[in-house]
Amino acid sequence: MKVAIFMGSKSDLEVMRGAGKALREFGIEFETYVMSAHRIPEKLVEKIDSLENDNFECIIAGAGLAAHLPGVIASHTTLPVIGVPLNAQLNGLDSLYSIVQMPKSIPVATVGINNSYNAGMLAVQMLSVKYPELKIALKKFRKVMKEKFIKDNSEGVEL
Amino acid sequence: MKVAIFMGSKSDLEVMRGAGKALREFGIEFETYVMSAHRIPEKLVEKIDSLENDNFECIIAGAGLAAHLPGVIASHTTLPVIGVPLNAQLNGLDSLYSIVQMPKSIPVATVGINNSYNAGMLAVQMLSVKYPELKIALKKFRKVMKEKFIKDNSEGVEL
Amino acid sequence: MKVAIFMGSKSDLEVMRGAGKALREFGIEFETYVMSAHRIPEKLVEKIDSLENDNFECIIAGAGLAAHLPGVIASHTTLPVIGVPLNAQLNGLDSLYSIVQMPKSIPVATVGINNSYNAGMLAVQMLSVKYPELKIALKKFRKVMKEKFIKDNSEGVEL
Amino acid sequence: MKVAIFMGSKSDLEVMRGAGKALREFGIEFETYVMSAHRIPEKLVEKIDSLENDNFECIIAGAGLAAHLPGVIASHTTLPVIGVPLNAQLNGLDSLYSIVQMPKSIPVATVGINNSYNAGMLAVQMLSVKYPELKIALKKFRKVMKEKFIKDNSEGVEL
Amino acid sequence: MKVAIFMGSKSDLEVMRGAGKALREFGIEFETYVMSAHRIPEKLVEKIDSLENDNFECIIAGAGLAAHLPGVIASHTTLPVIGVPLNAQLNGLDSLYSIVQMPKSIPVATVGINNSYNAGMLAVQMLSVKYPELKIALKKFRKVMKEKFIKDNSEGVEL
Amino acid sequence: MKVAIFMGSKSDLEVMRGAGKALREFGIEFETYVMSAHRIPEKLVEKIDSLENDNFECIIAGAGLAAHLPGVIASHTTLPVIGVPLNAQLNGLDSLYSIVQMPKSIPVATVGINNSYNAGMLAVQMLSVKYPELKIALKKFRKVMKEKFIKDNSEGVEL
Amino acid sequence: MKVAIFMGSKSDLEVMRGAGKALREFGIEFETYVMSAHRIPEKLVEKIDSLENDNFECIIAGAGLAAHLPGVIASHTTLPVIGVPLNAQLNGLDSLYSIVQMPKSIPVATVGINNSYNAGMLAVQMLSVKYPELKIALKKFRKVMKEKFIKDNSEGVEL
Amino acid sequence: MKVAIFMGSKSDLEVMRGAGKALREFGIEFETYVMSAHRIPEKLVEKIDSLENDNFECIIAGAGLAAHLPGVIASHTTLPVIGVPLNAQLNGLDSLYSIVQMPKSIPVATVGINNSYNAGMLAVQMLSVKYPELKIALKKFRKVMKEKFIKDNSEGVEL
Repeated sequence: MKVAIFMGSKSDLEVMRGAGKALREFGIEFETYVMSAHRIPEKLVEKIDSLENDNFECIIAGAGLAAHLPGVIASHTTLPVIGVPLNAQLNGLDSLYSIVQMPKSIPVATVGINNSYNAGMLAVQMLSVKYPELKIALKKFRKVMKEKFIKDNSEGVEL
Repeated sequence: MKVAIFMGSKSDLEVMRGAGKALREFGIEFETYVMSAHRIPEKLVEKIDSLENDNFECIIAGAGLAAHLPGVIASHTTLPVIGVPLNAQLNGLDSLYSIVQMPKSIPVATVGINNSYNAGMLAVQMLSVKYPELKIALKKFRKVMKEKFIKDNSEGVEL
Repeated sequence: MKVAIFMGSKSDLEVMRGAGKALREFGIEFETYVMSAHRIPEKLVEKIDSLENDNFECIIAGAGLAAHLPGVIASHTTLPVIGVPLNAQLNGLDSLYSIVQMPKSIPVATVGINNSYNAGMLAVQMLSVKYPELKIALKKFRKVMKEKFIKDNSEGVEL
Repeated sequence: MKVAIFMGSKSDLEVMRGAGKALREFGIEFETYVMSAHRIPEKLVEKIDSLENDNFECIIAGAGLAAHLPGVIASHTTLPVIGVPLNAQLNGLDSLYSIVQMPKSIPVATVGINNSYNAGMLAVQMLSVKYPELKIALKKFRKVMKEKFIKDNSEGVEL
Repeated sequence: MKVAIFMGSKSDLEVMRGAGKALREFGIEFETYVMSAHRIPEKLVEKIDSLENDNFECIIAGAGLAAHLPGVIASHTTLPVIGVPLNAQLNGLDSLYSIVQMPKSIPVATVGINNSYNAGMLAVQMLSVKYPELKIALKKFRKVMKEKFIKDNSEGVEL
Repeated sequence: MKVAIFMGSKSDLEVMRGAGKALREFGIEFETYVMSAHRIPEKLVEKIDSLENDNFECIIAGAGLAAHLPGVIASHTTLPVIGVPLNAQLNGLDSLYSIVQMPKSIPVATVGINNSYNAGMLAVQMLSVKYPELKIALKKFRKVMKEKFIKDNSEGVEL
Repeated sequence: MKVAIFMGSKSDLEVMRGAGKALREFGIEFETYVMSAHRIPEKLVEKIDSLENDNFECIIAGAGLAAHLPGVIASHTTLPVIGVPLNAQLNGLDSLYSIVQMPKSIPVATVGINNSYNAGMLAVQMLSVKYPELKIALKKFRKVMKEKFIKDNSEGVEL
Repeated sequence: MKVAIFMGSKSDLEVMRGAGKALREFGIEFETYVMSAHRIPEKLVEKIDSLENDNFECIIAGAGLAAHLPGVIASHTTLPVIGVPLNAQLNGLDSLYSIVQMPKSIPVATVGINNSYNAGMLAVQMLSVKYPELKIALKKFRKVMKEKFIKDNSEGVEL
């Protein structure tokens, strides 16, 4: 089980941490690449082309503004690509539209603005289709999450 | 390989056809359910709960307006859920935001507005992580798509 | 007279205080529940199902982002549900659309973004249909509000 | 049980029919008034002032564009006011914002754009707080709605 | 020459200062009123009704959120009403739409978001139609503004 | 009493008719000019410069898309300029923002999208500051409008 | 003088005709390519790489939805790239943001939504920096445009 | 090689620095002018008219709010005009629409919101059509940029 995480710039690192956090919680290995679709397009394609041989099974890509990175990656691979719209301007609407509105045949699985944790979680869910141990872990995760949520909020709150 | 396709109303049928079309192109079995998250919530949950036992491995859900269907499904299963925002008002922005902006831990893999074909294609890509024959089929599909695209446009166009 | 106030997370507490404030001004009892529509859906439904037996007559629910909470509650009860869109991203437009654009037959009475005080006030007005003492209190409240507004601004302001 | 339905112009009649339909389904009497907040403000206030004496218990108001009607009504009564944003321009966003973003203390219970049926249904739910027969009718309505929904969609659909 | 300036709340004072500043630059008398269209509607109408007798010739009104104030004023007078959309939420789009999208026959002369200075300036221009001395003052103002602008920027800037 | 009406293209004629209609109702003379701010800028400035000498007292300008026409006119005259945002794309939001968001000192009195009738009416109101007969006519107009509105809607409507 | 015009699909042909029209008016040679950034990325890059050797001096690219085409082209060439956002959904806002919000160092010269004519005209202006005959032609074009505009509108219009 | 950079106010200086930075990196001379389209329109036109004689070959103009500056400049010259939408309100959407949505025949080459660096880079690319040394410099710049990007990110990042 191995996931590749792409981002367009080192400045996206903080917002993208959630993806790593989610994958780590499920013991999924991942590699992180800072690669811009527009500044080093050939290098990016080269890297994408090698992912399958290196046994990556899922890709996460975060990008802001015009945010072509996830779509460009998707056009060069048949691995499922998860896109994280990052808020750099326009409250992230520019990146949301650029990532989610992909043309017919080349989808990007888009998650919420800046919500890299959900990108990681979605990767886990995708991989769990194949790996039964992940499915078990996911069910346990949900169960623990529920118990924790209930416990944390069991005393009620004072408005 | 089996996919469940949900929609909130029969009136969504036409826009959702693309999902079935994509799955059929890859020989993937699917069942279609018209189920509203708000009108028959208990029935919906009952159905979701049975999906895994019935060997479904991926879920597609299309919805318009408040568009809670994909998120509600995602909260009741660990199967990956693909959401299709349908344009009923506001150019589909209401359903896009309702589907993509899911809270931490419960992602919905969102595709473009009305782009149910891409939901089907994304399901294929997710399943291909597990099924090598699908990966081969996807690569062939891309190859054929490219050849067809090039052939269709080889004569150039007159502006 | 009893109102149930739901919110999806403890982090919504501050913004939701207004609802409690309004209800307290009219001596209306309320209970507060932190319950996520997506993280503990079964628990939430369980709680909703008990509300009528526990003599709750109106529900207030605040949520941000995809903000399914008010709509999910509305789908499980015939008590009137008041939704408060909370601003977590997109200036609160995502939660506004997700709450207000409910499908036919399952309405949510939506108030302004972050305006939990108005949710409380709307609950008072709904209950005043039944309770004559509330109607009297409301009329007095408006009268006092007017007098206070006029007094506070009677000296004029200097531009 | 009596509801007053306001609209700003005869041209809003078709879109507002849903409110009457919902009320009729529950045997609730209603009166309809075409009254503009801007063209006949004094007449409107006069009418609002008489509503309580005439035993109206809830108000529905639909308006487009600047859509001040529901808010102006709410400022002159303590009866709960339900606002229906009508789409005349900007996909109805102008009327949605004008209706939902009311200041502190004077709420308008806003429903979806053009969704007058939900305004009627919300009025029924509000009145059901007081009238037990309405609560019973609402529960029956939901039950029938569910059965009908399930029956209508029981045969499945072909994608 | 006398202008009435309305705002819905003391908290709008700072943003509305520009209107007073512009009027003062042209020696135009003005009165300022803090009056809410929704909290003291009768008082507001009373005040509007007295404006003409008190020789006011133009009205400026600033409001945020649902921002009905300028439109409500316009519906009760034939004096020209200038509306200033104040940014309280949604970047001021809610107030902009609520103020500018007035129905046929009852216009509000809308200026930019938070741009109360331009409301004052527009009042000056309106009054200058009647008062030749204002027209002369306006032409001088423009001349001085131009000279000052050119002088202030004559030395160029270093990028 | 003379008003100048500008539009950027003959194709704006139909939407701008309302301005002429309103002015005619009050017996106000007007001239209409089709002049583009971008295609014939020098000619436009020439015309603006002559307006005051030709005794024009108010200007109306309608424009779509980038919609610079009203603002460019306002920068060349101290006559009050009324801008009508025309919907050519983006539901008219592009022209609304371009017209209303003028910089400090150079206001454009903006009316609703495509609402040229209100531009005419606003011109009447501006001129009525100077011309008592117009004020009388405006009061009569409002009175007749009210009577007509009430009469037209006196029989009630059937929902 | 030679311009390359790209579009992502034959279905964009009609909207893109304006680009060809503008170039033809100035006698500029152009080639048209239907090439998708996502469906045939390698072929697209191949074509871009050959453009300079084939003496193209400017590129026009129109695309809708996620609209990566102009940006992808810009990342593979130093020729100036003009992007035309095409309206396929969301009034073209998705393509506008995707095209104009390019990251630092890789600009796309964006023109108005569907405004391919202006893309052609901008190409002419860019080339006129190098070719004096084009500058002369542009000045003549402007002159003729002005004369024609004035003549076409000289008789005035009747509102 | 000489570029003119316009901005509407000294307060735009910081955001516009990027344009100068980009031009300097390529050794392109530029002059900077603070000139408002609305406050000193005659002076602005005068300056534009002299640009060609002073051998300027490209113009950059940044503006916020109604942001007419780039379009007004474009209407007075056939030199290519690059517009930079500056964010002063509405996240810069007002200036973006005002700049990019120019009418047929008078294009403005629009870059991203606040992205003045890209305006400078686009100017370099435009001029490189004429000046072979710039083309060489651009290719080198891209090469260095790629190498630097790869080097800066070669060690990978830790999520």
